[in-house]
Amino acid sequence: MSHKGKLYGVGIGPGDAELLTLKAIKALKKADVICLPKSKDQASTALEIVEEFLPKDIEQVQMVFSMSKDIEQRKTSRKNNALEVMEMLDQGKNVVFLTLGDPMLYSTYSYLLEYLTKEYSVENIPGIYSFSAISNTLSIPLCKGKEKVSVIGAFNKDSEAILALSDTTVCMKISSYGKQLAEFLKNNSGYSFTMISEAGKEEESQYFDAKILEGDLPYFSTAIVQKIKQ
Amino acid sequence: MSHKGKLYGVGIGPGDAELLTLKAIKALKKADVICLPKSKDQASTALEIVEEFLPKDIEQVQMVFSMSKDIEQRKTSRKNNALEVMEMLDQGKNVVFLTLGDPMLYSTYSYLLEYLTKEYSVENIPGIYSFSAISNTLSIPLCKGKEKVSVIGAFNKDSEAILALSDTTVCMKISSYGKQLAEFLKNNSGYSFTMISEAGKEEESQYFDAKILEGDLPYFSTAIVQKIKQ
Repeated sequence: MSHKGKLYGVGIGPGDAELLTLKAIKALKKADVICLPKSKDQASTALEIVEEFLPKDIEQVQMVFSMSKDIEQRKTSRKNNALEVMEMLDQGKNVVFLTLGDPMLYSTYSYLLEYLTKEYSVENIPGIYSFSAISNTLSIPLCKGKEKVSVIGAFNKDSEAILALSDTTVCMKISSYGKQLAEFLKNNSGYSFTMISEAGKEEESQYFDAKILEGDLPYFSTAIVQKIKQ
Repeated sequence: MSHKGKLYGVGIGPGDAELLTLKAIKALKKADVICLPKSKDQASTALEIVEEFLPKDIEQVQMVFSMSKDIEQRKTSRKNNALEVMEMLDQGKNVVFLTLGDPMLYSTYSYLLEYLTKEYSVENIPGIYSFSAISNTLSIPLCKGKEKVSVIGAFNKDSEAILALSDTTVCMKISSYGKQLAEFLKNNSGYSFTMISEAGKEEESQYFDAKILEGDLPYFSTAIVQKIKQ
């Protein structure tokens, strides 16, 4: 037990190294292995953010997580990655698994955790959510007083009700449902719309007209939809 | 213009100095004045967290924000505090306004911002939300895949619908509506309940039985209510 390494699930925020927490940096410095999911451009983005804090001789592991429509295949892939992590922990290595944003909000890491058995020591370190950074950049309070805010990652039968009930709805992973949201906003007046793509990066763009939703959106786009107060 | 100071709205996270971001620390070090709302124990808690990063000769201002039921009185109080901040900025001072958690989520700071006129330079710096820290501490993913998560700060006519539609509902400021939430959970099975009080502090307590809601709750309590998946 005492010779096993420790797993750190580290949230690194939206893409600006200055939004790393002290706790995250401390974990990065203790890492023997840095692990990250290989998907879209996320892997290289995540590595760039933390590079300056990593030990020089660190081992890098990019893990492929199946995106198959077959749930069993996705589960097998998660389990195999968890087995690989546990093997490294058994070798006494400290493993840091990076997550853009936060490890407990739409992260691949949370799937991996399901397959990690109890004898391993795990520490999760929160990171700034992309929408939190965006609301601060744009000075848009997400909620005040008795208001409520919701976060959606897809558009399905309940999404319209959520948009109707919430003072603010944060739309993440919006590139997969831009057109549906555009349709909703066309049919329902009384909402304001703000979107940021590639937040914190050089290519960052801000949009205030929901028409942008009708075209193709960059993968890292997040919208804030708010009821306009009378 | 160039002689005016800058206002920094700094989110300091839930109460653990290690969860400060590098950006927040940078702003703290540039502060001439540190401002914070005087309410409950928040002021002293916030100061303790950041103390080690503040310049030695820093000026401290604790601002009283009216909690009156009369909205006009609350507005006057916010406006007067904004005037005081603008006066300090006019004197060329950099003012840091501290917020436990994040400046754009249920913060007094966001009310103050409404009265700050356009000629002042403002930078908001996001902080880790208390519920983000809690979900990481307890290894409870708030959402995966296509799920949705909502955050409420009161219990009103829409709250039951939000609880029914969301995979996860984060209940903040729960000390004001514990009994109503207890009643909901008694009448609706299929939800898990987790609560943390005084997160990150020595007195931190974790609760997994909703019965705790029937008594008096510490002011800093946050619950995570999740639909139990079949």
